[in-house]
Amino acid sequence: MSLIVQKFGGTSVADADRIRNVARIITETYRRGHSLVVVLSAQGDTTDDLIAKAGEINPKASKREMDMLLSTGEQISCALCAMAIEAMGYPVVSLTGWQAGFKTNSAYGAARIKNVRTERILAELDKRKIVIVTGFQGINKYGDVTTLGRGGSDTSAVALAATLHADLCQIYTDVDGVFTADPRSVKGARKLDEITYDEMLELATLGAQVLHNRSVEMAKRYNVNLEVLSSFSGQPGTKVKEVAKTMEKPYVSGVAKDKNIARLALVGLPDKPGTAFRIFSTLAKYGINVDIILQSIGRNNTKDISFTVGHEDMDKARQVMSEMKDILGFDHIDVTDEIAKVSIVGAGMINNPGVASLMFEALYNAGINIHMISTSEIKVSVLVDKCDADNAVQVIHDRFFEEYGSL
Amino acid sequence: MSLIVQKFGGTSVADADRIRNVARIITETYRRGHSLVVVLSAQGDTTDDLIAKAGEINPKASKREMDMLLSTGEQISCALCAMAIEAMGYPVVSLTGWQAGFKTNSAYGAARIKNVRTERILAELDKRKIVIVTGFQGINKYGDVTTLGRGGSDTSAVALAATLHADLCQIYTDVDGVFTADPRSVKGARKLDEITYDEMLELATLGAQVLHNRSVEMAKRYNVNLEVLSSFSGQPGTKVKEVAKTMEKPYVSGVAKDKNIARLALVGLPDKPGTAFRIFSTLAKYGINVDIILQSIGRNNTKDISFTVGHEDMDKARQVMSEMKDILGFDHIDVTDEIAKVSIVGAGMINNPGVASLMFEALYNAGINIHMISTSEIKVSVLVDKCDADNAVQVIHDRFFEEYGSL
Repeated sequence: MSLIVQKFGGTSVADADRIRNVARIITETYRRGHSLVVVLSAQGDTTDDLIAKAGEINPKASKREMDMLLSTGEQISCALCAMAIEAMGYPVVSLTGWQAGFKTNSAYGAARIKNVRTERILAELDKRKIVIVTGFQGINKYGDVTTLGRGGSDTSAVALAATLHADLCQIYTDVDGVFTADPRSVKGARKLDEITYDEMLELATLGAQVLHNRSVEMAKRYNVNLEVLSSFSGQPGTKVKEVAKTMEKPYVSGVAKDKNIARLALVGLPDKPGTAFRIFSTLAKYGINVDIILQSIGRNNTKDISFTVGHEDMDKARQVMSEMKDILGFDHIDVTDEIAKVSIVGAGMINNPGVASLMFEALYNAGINIHMISTSEIKVSVLVDKCDADNAVQVIHDRFFEEYGSL
Repeated sequence: MSLIVQKFGGTSVADADRIRNVARIITETYRRGHSLVVVLSAQGDTTDDLIAKAGEINPKASKREMDMLLSTGEQISCALCAMAIEAMGYPVVSLTGWQAGFKTNSAYGAARIKNVRTERILAELDKRKIVIVTGFQGINKYGDVTTLGRGGSDTSAVALAATLHADLCQIYTDVDGVFTADPRSVKGARKLDEITYDEMLELATLGAQVLHNRSVEMAKRYNVNLEVLSSFSGQPGTKVKEVAKTMEKPYVSGVAKDKNIARLALVGLPDKPGTAFRIFSTLAKYGINVDIILQSIGRNNTKDISFTVGHEDMDKARQVMSEMKDILGFDHIDVTDEIAKVSIVGAGMINNPGVASLMFEALYNAGINIHMISTSEIKVSVLVDKCDADNAVQVIHDRFFEEYGSL
């Protein structure tokens, strides 16, 4: 008998039929003799609807009151799911974030979990109840409701699994697992049986959008066995672990793209020390995350520095840099959002130096121009024109997964 | 500077415009220098919508999970109202039932308030914040969310006013106050400036539906100054007090009707002691509230006992009585819901014995037949055919308020 944490996303509980479907998955797991804690998101568009309601009244509402409002979404889905389980004749109890013991800091709208006081959950498990817990929320030291921000419900589930020392944390979603590329747009994309935390982290950052980074980081830190699977198909999903059990790892686990970025280039900087430090410490001060950085080789005592940011930070980054024009002494700024990042990820790359060149070759054969390159131990990212991004993912995927099978 | 509790019902916060209107009333009160605690119901049909959602999934959902679900309604309206007040530039905080310290027993769906631990509210008032509190809900000793059932938000407001020793508890609703009769159906109905707790209690019981009995009883017990007024008109409302200040009270304060009743008659009971006790203790055991009771004078060793119950209890009462047919020894049961109760209420009646006969005379002149009569110190109720009820209220109201002015 194991202790299992299951998490279902908003699509999985969007209406009465889907809630019944989720209740079936839960009760089948329970019937096999497992102890079960279930974390739910708000139903489908509930959160967006609540945000719209708030926007009608006060577009600049305090985050404290937004959290008070938004936290009702999960409470509704949890109560309804508990009712569905009751209708099937199983013992169940639903708990809000504060009832389940989620203690967070006070960063309303983006709170961090400090700890989970699991007394209540353990007491309910002792009574052999299925415990349904609201994801995405907790309370701070003032007793006020907080929400965890993006990826919050996944993080709630992993935090619970870590604190309860659960044997498995299953993240149910609307896809069958983690794929070698986005199956909606890439022909031949296939599901991975296993993936390491680090690969998953790179894929999440790169826009694969199956699991939020925050939850994967936490799973890695506390060594929580994750499984990503579909609440609709009933198929086995993808296991996320410290070391995947396959002895010979494929070089590449997946191909991902991110179109939601922008590139800024500071052209004609004087070639002197300290320039990069000034630029990136200033951006950090304004909370702007920089991803790929490229510095041209100095020539005629000038150099260029290019970097990418999330699209939402483009205007702010441009403004911050413009205000530093005199201090930095550059000639002008080039800004574009007509670009995309395409990346390959794989723990097997470390010992296979030829992987990057296979990727470049595939792009060259397809006539796709590369603007910037960035590499890490388990990833290679390139910047291409946005209009080339879909094709780039396809030809790279073909190169690694079609022509050679699983390398 | 006074401490004022204001309560707004579901109609008053039904949409964004109405929430802004409520926020204006609240901030105007605050600007006059008062400390202010506001109790809100759920928006318009929210509670009904949530009940429908639950019904789709499990029509026999546990009351514990229903309360978990329903309590979100007030949380939403409170957060939205707080946002509207923020937009107007005033300091405000919204609190759920558990945050506001509402401790109840564990009768889910119909919980009773045990006490209100007001530390958090007082701390927020000390910071000069407007405090918005969810009505209708609290938590029990297990830390589970409970709801108070019918009239719950009024009761929340009065309980807060009592505990905080507030100077005034204003119940904002969609009518201008307490009327001599229902102004939607009775010509010449007029608003009362004042009314006593006891009169209000009789009127509430009799179906005037302005304030729930529970809240009036509590206001009387703790001597809370109540005012019932409209959130739409801006007019002064009706004050509910221990003793109305007018020295010479009018005989009659109001005329009310209740069509939602049924009458059962047990015909041909043996005329022996203990019969009435058996009947009504059995009904009480099944939780059936009996209102008017009439026992015919014994004749030929038999008698009839008639009584009225709420319409929702009609079938259950018939069944319970039928099962006792042999024990009680009656001949048959007559059941009808084609009846209505019409009542006059007034603290001035006690010293004016002729009031009841004026009522009977008005009904006689209008050709309306009286089936049963019940009197208390401050009320006279009669049972008439349902089809006569509206006319009965009008002619009685004319008799007391039109012909003689305010008696």
